[in-house]
Amino acid sequence: MEIIKDLRVMQARSGFLRQEGKAIGFVPTMGYLHEGHLTLLRRAREENDIVVLSIFVNPAQFGAGEDYEKYPRDTEGDLAKASEAGTDIAFLPEVAEMYPAGYATYVNVEGLTEKLCGRSRPGHFRGVTTVVLKLFNLVQPHRAYFGEKDYQQLVVIKKMVSDLNLDLQIIGCPTVRESDGLAMSSRNAYLSPQERLSALCLSRSLAKAEELIRGGEKSPQSIINEISKVIEKEPGAKIDYVAVCHPETLGDLESIDSQALIALAVKIGPARLLDNRLVKVNN
Amino acid sequence: MEIIKDLRVMQARSGFLRQEGKAIGFVPTMGYLHEGHLTLLRRAREENDIVVLSIFVNPAQFGAGEDYEKYPRDTEGDLAKASEAGTDIAFLPEVAEMYPAGYATYVNVEGLTEKLCGRSRPGHFRGVTTVVLKLFNLVQPHRAYFGEKDYQQLVVIKKMVSDLNLDLQIIGCPTVRESDGLAMSSRNAYLSPQERLSALCLSRSLAKAEELIRGGEKSPQSIINEISKVIEKEPGAKIDYVAVCHPETLGDLESIDSQALIALAVKIGPARLLDNRLVKVNN
Repeated sequence: MEIIKDLRVMQARSGFLRQEGKAIGFVPTMGYLHEGHLTLLRRAREENDIVVLSIFVNPAQFGAGEDYEKYPRDTEGDLAKASEAGTDIAFLPEVAEMYPAGYATYVNVEGLTEKLCGRSRPGHFRGVTTVVLKLFNLVQPHRAYFGEKDYQQLVVIKKMVSDLNLDLQIIGCPTVRESDGLAMSSRNAYLSPQERLSALCLSRSLAKAEELIRGGEKSPQSIINEISKVIEKEPGAKIDYVAVCHPETLGDLESIDSQALIALAVKIGPARLLDNRLVKVNN
Repeated sequence: MEIIKDLRVMQARSGFLRQEGKAIGFVPTMGYLHEGHLTLLRRAREENDIVVLSIFVNPAQFGAGEDYEKYPRDTEGDLAKASEAGTDIAFLPEVAEMYPAGYATYVNVEGLTEKLCGRSRPGHFRGVTTVVLKLFNLVQPHRAYFGEKDYQQLVVIKKMVSDLNLDLQIIGCPTVRESDGLAMSSRNAYLSPQERLSALCLSRSLAKAEELIRGGEKSPQSIINEISKVIEKEPGAKIDYVAVCHPETLGDLESIDSQALIALAVKIGPARLLDNRLVKVNN
């Protein structure tokens, strides 16, 4: 596995690979790789000639008072895991190269980014789309892979790619979970053993919601209430949002008729955790 | 010369040409081609294997009450001139394809776009950078050519390209003028014969300013006053702005010591006209 830190070297390498007709699969990450990331890398490995992983903790997507400084980092461990998963190139840009003094250009997807996580993290998605576009321009992939755990991020990036006419395919991959149901996240590292147990309320409440919908419940408000009840029982859990929305527009549903994305963000101790479930119902 | 209207066809064609190792030169325009545009096309012809011209009157860069509807159009004439200048592909996208229903993604270069024309045309440069990025993604040029008449636009686009790590070269080309000094612009078509004469005050005031600076004048305010005097003498001329600024940051200069961009926007009857002059002085 090759390690590239220099932006121009990365871009030149990708240009050369494309010229040679190689298909480039790309997995952008903030590092501290877990099985979710590795699943993306393995999928990219299957579908492309060259697999590029990027590790970049992107300051532009963290708000003031958020966890940019303490976000977990383990480059050495990451590189070992990435290599094992079949990565060809690990791209590790530096903050000062990605955002040199005087940096001023931002990409924003309006509407979609103001909902759900966008409400409690203003500017977050602007930081995400900007860095992802920069990484796409540097890595020039044919396919890029994102986890469905960050469902809104996936929807926003798909919209950016479509709106800006980028010539690449965005592939969403199912959330990978611990055996007890907790969605894998680098931020799970923040949890104490007690909080780790409390965190199960996210996936448990979503399972309950799906059960209710399959039992005929059509009211988003009833679902939100039931989810909230499950989470509020958990000591130390604080709901950021619970939403029942359209999986593409992320707009609130008035009634659950064909499909619904149930998405939630919950603070468990120091960690703000996300989970979601896409439920399709037959009428 | 080939005419392409379909976005996917354009993108596929460019992808194929790049794969073949062809260098693509690109001249994005809003049509109604004049000698300024043709000079860009001829330069692109000299420096590339393939020359792509786009003609797209971009609604996103016009504000409410501006001249989007009445902006001059002459596709047939444009295609004849473009072909004559050596264009290989004329790309004519449709508004409904470029901005389909639900379009939501915009690129903004902060700071630079709030000065000069940005002050009187809020949102204008956001529309420019967004459409230019989209066109770059569709045409995938190695080099793109812009006139220095729209100096701020050129600076803003260079900044976007650098910040977003786009793998292409932006080439600014000197303003082409009528024999009496008027900078060529599609909007000159709005001028009556009397206004056409009045419009000479732009280039005349800039010549005066350069003369003063070469004579030792270092005060931006004095230069602005002298330019204003020349323009205000002209009946029907209304100054939007006169600025003496740094040619890269576009920030106001406190003193003219090495180089200065003198830029102005003046309303002459129905036309808002731009002109500028970059003056370098030896100390």
